[in-house]
Amino acid sequence: MNVNGQHYRTIWLVDEVTVRIIDQKILPFEFRLLDLHTPDEIALAIKTMLVRGAGLIGAAAGYGMYLATLYAPKENRDAFMGAMQHAAEKLVKTRPTAVNLAWAVHRQLNAIQQAQTPQEGIQIAKATAQAIADEDAHACQRIGEHGLSLITEIAKRKGGEPVNILTHCNAGWLAFVDFGSATAPIYRAHDEGVNVHVWVDETRPRNQGARLTAWELGQHGVNHTIIADNVGGHLMQHGMVDLVIVGSDRTTVTGDVANKIGTYLKALAAHDNGVPFYAALPSSTIDWTLRDGVRQIPIEERAPEEVTHMEGIVDDSIVTVRITPPNSRVANYGFDVTPARLVTGILTERGICGANESEIRALFPEK
Amino acid sequence: MNVNGQHYRTIWLVDEVTVRIIDQKILPFEFRLLDLHTPDEIALAIKTMLVRGAGLIGAAAGYGMYLATLYAPKENRDAFMGAMQHAAEKLVKTRPTAVNLAWAVHRQLNAIQQAQTPQEGIQIAKATAQAIADEDAHACQRIGEHGLSLITEIAKRKGGEPVNILTHCNAGWLAFVDFGSATAPIYRAHDEGVNVHVWVDETRPRNQGARLTAWELGQHGVNHTIIADNVGGHLMQHGMVDLVIVGSDRTTVTGDVANKIGTYLKALAAHDNGVPFYAALPSSTIDWTLRDGVRQIPIEERAPEEVTHMEGIVDDSIVTVRITPPNSRVANYGFDVTPARLVTGILTERGICGANESEIRALFPEK
Repeated sequence: MNVNGQHYRTIWLVDEVTVRIIDQKILPFEFRLLDLHTPDEIALAIKTMLVRGAGLIGAAAGYGMYLATLYAPKENRDAFMGAMQHAAEKLVKTRPTAVNLAWAVHRQLNAIQQAQTPQEGIQIAKATAQAIADEDAHACQRIGEHGLSLITEIAKRKGGEPVNILTHCNAGWLAFVDFGSATAPIYRAHDEGVNVHVWVDETRPRNQGARLTAWELGQHGVNHTIIADNVGGHLMQHGMVDLVIVGSDRTTVTGDVANKIGTYLKALAAHDNGVPFYAALPSSTIDWTLRDGVRQIPIEERAPEEVTHMEGIVDDSIVTVRITPPNSRVANYGFDVTPARLVTGILTERGICGANESEIRALFPEK
Repeated sequence: MNVNGQHYRTIWLVDEVTVRIIDQKILPFEFRLLDLHTPDEIALAIKTMLVRGAGLIGAAAGYGMYLATLYAPKENRDAFMGAMQHAAEKLVKTRPTAVNLAWAVHRQLNAIQQAQTPQEGIQIAKATAQAIADEDAHACQRIGEHGLSLITEIAKRKGGEPVNILTHCNAGWLAFVDFGSATAPIYRAHDEGVNVHVWVDETRPRNQGARLTAWELGQHGVNHTIIADNVGGHLMQHGMVDLVIVGSDRTTVTGDVANKIGTYLKALAAHDNGVPFYAALPSSTIDWTLRDGVRQIPIEERAPEEVTHMEGIVDDSIVTVRITPPNSRVANYGFDVTPARLVTGILTERGICGANESEIRALFPEK
């Protein structure tokens, strides 16, 4: 999407040896591009969350494997493949719970295995990296196309009034290669001239809403308002939200949606006030083996510093301040699970379906 | 309650001319006592939120009116009463929406009216200020006594396991003169040796939970854990919350509870998971004229800076950092209303009752 009026992806190949990314750690305080040349730099970028978000991590891993081919020994096929195996292991370790990371790395390994020579391996890895990035962007674009009607139908009903959409965390283009998942229908509607307004949940403790979603919507020119995570229920009670769209980190085949902590509370409020609640996700997010999200999906506990400290800007410097008493304990659960009964629908690259096994399987009969 | 092992109220008379308060603006980073000598200093302390919370604001206003008598002209009764009328108007203006503030000031004015001489007025004002503070502390203490059984019954069921109580915002002793409303049963249970553990909602955007509730619980030795506001639903889904107790800024005679923004979301989660949800409040909080909280209670919109900026400590200095993109709009609603259907019970100084008109009126037949 656009930054300063110019179109960007979150990651791309500048030339044969350079991958360029947006430094997401210093957004929204500064917009800085970084050039990465080695698989170690890619690994560090993933580990330190310069790049984050399921789709983008997958794409970064794909490009990381391509860069690794450039540095692998070219004497013979075995030495080359051994080095690639080693590079793969190193990349996968950077964020062990990121499903897309392992998936992209293994897709690359399998593709490169087909090569007869190291030189051919390099070409295959480059094409595969591009394919992973393109497919991610394309899936998000399709989510936008399918989700558009959800917004235009409300827009028709409301005449010229803005369609108010609430979102939680960042399931925006910054988390993917382009378009985003939850944001894709919003960008699409905006680009078609529909009057949309987005309530952006701050999303404590990492503030991905206030820092990333607000920034990317603003850069693309989408009307939005940041709110504390506590506010959404009040807005829904007063008819100020027409639609909720969130992303998902993992969705069961039965329609339970794991997403950033706090999503469940918004789903409850949407249900209590008759507001439609959709989860937008590429089908790679669907776990075809799980049937009970609340019981089966393990929830990551993250570092207490995310709650006890807050990063911000003062006098053009990025500063971290402590915001809690020094002796108070903190618990920091990263995700929660919204039961399917609270989910109006699942929005995928194949179309929209109800949050239940039969409709999900009908959309993906090959699974 | 205790600070550094010593008992404190939030406000008290040190000598005939000095009111002492805790500077609540710099908690939890520093514990500092401030001495106030004039009604103007009391007004400034209320206006700048050095003191805050319904009960404490009322008590501060009572003491402010007493200090005003010391500076009012003593030549004759009319001059004295004229000055007191003026002082009253000035105090009431400091926070126009604080119901207890106006109530305490008018109680003082009515009491002082009974005096035959300025000297008698001074004595009446002093006694009335003490009475307002004592009655506030006493009402909270009674809430603690009545609420104790809610906790001990769960404790019995759980054997030696801790009783996990979730609270939102600060309805603690810092918001009153002592004991607090939501915290009163918790302190009482703790002091009786019951194993309690409190989940403290951070309470964005002003962080009264992370800053004040966590601090006061910690100082009194109560086991607690700070969580982001997003976390409570997840905890309740997993049986990690036995009881929710919150305060209230205004409760309708039909049992709708207005409280800090985000309370409604926790009530929804409690209801969805069969967790009892109580609002603890002195009966002065009940509005006997309102019947529909969501429609009738106006919700204050507060300054955007509470959302865009965050105060914390770094290198022993208190620093304010900006945490949002400069061009993003912010909405900052201060309160929300939890409908009576989600409230298990109302906990008052007279006892516990259901959140409905007949039970509330049965407890307060004189209203």
